[in-house]
Amino acid sequence: MSSENNDAPYELIYWPGLPGRGEWIRLLFEQAGVPYTDHTKNPELVVPAVLEYISAENTGDATNLPILAPPILKHGDLVIHQLPNILLYLAPRLGLAPSQGSAVFHLNQLVLTLLDGFVNEMHETHHPIAVSLYYEDQKPEAKRRSKYYVEERIPKFLRYVQRVLGSQASGDGPWLYGGELTYADLVLFQCLDGTKYAFPKTIEKLRKSKGSDGKGQYDGVFKLYDEVKSLPNISSYLASERRQPYGDGIFRHYAELEEE
Amino acid sequence: MSSENNDAPYELIYWPGLPGRGEWIRLLFEQAGVPYTDHTKNPELVVPAVLEYISAENTGDATNLPILAPPILKHGDLVIHQLPNILLYLAPRLGLAPSQGSAVFHLNQLVLTLLDGFVNEMHETHHPIAVSLYYEDQKPEAKRRSKYYVEERIPKFLRYVQRVLGSQASGDGPWLYGGELTYADLVLFQCLDGTKYAFPKTIEKLRKSKGSDGKGQYDGVFKLYDEVKSLPNISSYLASERRQPYGDGIFRHYAELEEE
Repeated sequence: MSSENNDAPYELIYWPGLPGRGEWIRLLFEQAGVPYTDHTKNPELVVPAVLEYISAENTGDATNLPILAPPILKHGDLVIHQLPNILLYLAPRLGLAPSQGSAVFHLNQLVLTLLDGFVNEMHETHHPIAVSLYYEDQKPEAKRRSKYYVEERIPKFLRYVQRVLGSQASGDGPWLYGGELTYADLVLFQCLDGTKYAFPKTIEKLRKSKGSDGKGQYDGVFKLYDEVKSLPNISSYLASERRQPYGDGIFRHYAELEEE
Repeated sequence: MSSENNDAPYELIYWPGLPGRGEWIRLLFEQAGVPYTDHTKNPELVVPAVLEYISAENTGDATNLPILAPPILKHGDLVIHQLPNILLYLAPRLGLAPSQGSAVFHLNQLVLTLLDGFVNEMHETHHPIAVSLYYEDQKPEAKRRSKYYVEERIPKFLRYVQRVLGSQASGDGPWLYGGELTYADLVLFQCLDGTKYAFPKTIEKLRKSKGSDGKGQYDGVFKLYDEVKSLPNISSYLASERRQPYGDGIFRHYAELEEE
């Protein structure tokens, strides 16, 4: 990409009013302390902008492909979409990942796995039949799917994260990879935070769950969650008005989906 | 990663007996004409190898993270998983994508989008409730989901691909990006080929579908499919015993899911 991008402002273009898939992007900027323009804070302007980007008539420009769906990152003359792709682009530029070597691929695989488990599969819990239907029109299926999500899938992904934390490649300390804070840690934080909103009883139960050795089965996972939450920049962000409450986005709380 | 990887052999480790998620990886090697060891051709060895990689006790090694699920790529001392991540690693090394610049991110976003539409959502058509249940135990839900997939989702993704093909950034000729064959074209080919196996009537209908201008609505998409299929290396591969028939993998043909 052209070198002038280095000094260009970062711009986030996404649906307003919800953390949504934009939240992972915001957390990277917030932790890095790098200024960004969050266009979602201007709903009257950003909604038409998103609609214009995703319109069937919009075929991008000389260098950028058309956009299927937001979040969209604009950085100088570069316009990209797809959440894991935006994170891959941003992380090394914001000092939250190495820019080359095998770490790039190890972190990307970890982030893809976390987003599979806690974003893609989470979305299916309230929309197991069709995105074009209301939740109310797919409620029995949502209930059936959520049962398996809560009982099998969340534990499966948490076990995997715990396995990563116990690996040599994870290094010392609370972080997922190489002994240092990376964007994967921020991604995990938001995955857990959203899941806690959607399925609070489940997360509470898993936090207390003991392994056969009597120790907390997911201690590392929840320690990492707490550590990210108390990072000075993240902690100020979470306390600020920039952090939006959850609602009817990816992470939704329907009490009936979490019945005992 | 260490420089000795440059001369190391490429090894694909995956479940045997099906194209599955391994197929996109095979197509890159086949088109590039680069030798690779496909361990899936030795079921007695590869099944224990996969089980060992994904075992709860396996915490990777000094540099590689543990693996959640195959496909797995081993290249010298590097071991990675997650299909779009493996493709991202391989494509520039196999001459199927630039190794830097904005093209890396434009191609990655396109591949992520194609895999979302034709792998992740496809899997949900036969497993809308739980991966741990048999298809037979989630058939009514599968039928309901497939109806929306066939009527709304496949056309949505094909319209997007057609929009990409009509973009300036796509360049001249049949290919998706920059006027040259890239790994995104191979990815699209396999997405369509698998979808044709799973939902043959739907793909046949969409191939003939006309837009308001009387032209084939998805002409570019299917032209690209035909072009990839007739590339000399791909064509020999498809005719060889190395290409495995579809079965009960991601792409499954259940006639009842495609009733008129």
